[in-house]
Amino acid sequence: MKALFIGGIKSGKSFLAEKHSLKNATSKPYYLATTEFIDPEMHERIKAHKMQRKENFTTIEEPLKLHYVVSQLDALVLVECVSIWINNMLYHEKNFDEMKKEIKDILALDKDIVFVLNDVGSGIIPQNKLARQFVDISGKLSQLLARECDEVFHVIAGIGTKIK
Amino acid sequence: MKALFIGGIKSGKSFLAEKHSLKNATSKPYYLATTEFIDPEMHERIKAHKMQRKENFTTIEEPLKLHYVVSQLDALVLVECVSIWINNMLYHEKNFDEMKKEIKDILALDKDIVFVLNDVGSGIIPQNKLARQFVDISGKLSQLLARECDEVFHVIAGIGTKIK
Amino acid sequence: MKALFIGGIKSGKSFLAEKHSLKNATSKPYYLATTEFIDPEMHERIKAHKMQRKENFTTIEEPLKLHYVVSQLDALVLVECVSIWINNMLYHEKNFDEMKKEIKDILALDKDIVFVLNDVGSGIIPQNKLARQFVDISGKLSQLLARECDEVFHVIAGIGTKIK
Repeated sequence: MKALFIGGIKSGKSFLAEKHSLKNATSKPYYLATTEFIDPEMHERIKAHKMQRKENFTTIEEPLKLHYVVSQLDALVLVECVSIWINNMLYHEKNFDEMKKEIKDILALDKDIVFVLNDVGSGIIPQNKLARQFVDISGKLSQLLARECDEVFHVIAGIGTKIK
Repeated sequence: MKALFIGGIKSGKSFLAEKHSLKNATSKPYYLATTEFIDPEMHERIKAHKMQRKENFTTIEEPLKLHYVVSQLDALVLVECVSIWINNMLYHEKNFDEMKKEIKDILALDKDIVFVLNDVGSGIIPQNKLARQFVDISGKLSQLLARECDEVFHVIAGIGTKIK
Repeated sequence: MKALFIGGIKSGKSFLAEKHSLKNATSKPYYLATTEFIDPEMHERIKAHKMQRKENFTTIEEPLKLHYVVSQLDALVLVECVSIWINNMLYHEKNFDEMKKEIKDILALDKDIVFVLNDVGSGIIPQNKLARQFVDISGKLSQLLARECDEVFHVIAGIGTKIK
């Protein structure tokens, strides 16, 4: 079982993805945190997220090698989130093809995986070139993920609508 | 009956919320305008909106005290809109907890209320800290509203899709 | 038959609109490319799009006179895309009423037309006045298009959800 939760900032996608993971896991699931760059604001957000998920998940932190880490795990993995991972990959000067390969590899694993992705493409096209590049990559990878996932949920105002 | 209409800029959410209000009101409904800060551009928008709703609503203006005002009214109230109210609250240096309390209080009223909210979270994360704060608050309050409303409509291109 | 595909940047809307056009065309369809202003980045995007559609369409380029061009054609027309056309019209100092007239005229044609439009209204309200004007026009025209189209699809992560 693979699922994708896509939604805007503070749409409630993480909460729904966690619920979905807990419901579908047959043993204690993993929470794969992709965060790497901690600024104070980000730190606060993460603390709030951590409190939310309490003791239900085993948390693992990995900013880049998603496929390798997930391939080693023996229970459902919640990847939280793909957007921060894209950010990390860009920071480490990985190109789109490398990201695409990593996503394809992880999708090819015979594992239960729940992906969370920030929908960033429905505002005005950003003037900043890096932001534009991020939006493009995010959109293309979201299509790749959605194509291979069994279920896709669009989340808005805390409500997940199943679109696949 | 409580309903939430959420959609992007010029998605047609206000028009649908007005139609929904008129259809569900058992006596002449109120239009609670939250606008406070009038610049010329905003003024034009409001004039266009006013013409749209003609004589079907009794218009009341209140930028901050939503709960108090709604508690005094004896017919369906259309709150237009929550996003401008958030803006007003930020301007008056109210914090998130104060906003959350106000929204919880209004949701606890045994009244028919239709809320309109701008979906601002599906673009790139804004660089401006205040804008980021606004997006966060808007997202969290949209979840709170959606949880307590009987019906939630996502509006795009003038089409309201019932997601709850 | 008229259809509208609306979605964010790299949501996969063009690909779905092309598939829809090929499925619904009774003879070789036209691809009406509205692009006018070529910068290198734009050029790359267009090349990628062109490869995608190969030999299935007859490509025509017209940045402004949508109605006139479509009225001359004798098969299904895919208008790719309305957003770039709005941009062109703004650049040539056409006002909203002129755009509205053009769109109304094209919708009045008894032809099979598939429109593609970028959803730009679900981010934060842009600070730049021209961007704000673009978002407003885009939203209003999307409502006009959706009202007259037989089918409307909201595209996210490559998945088209029929909302009308």
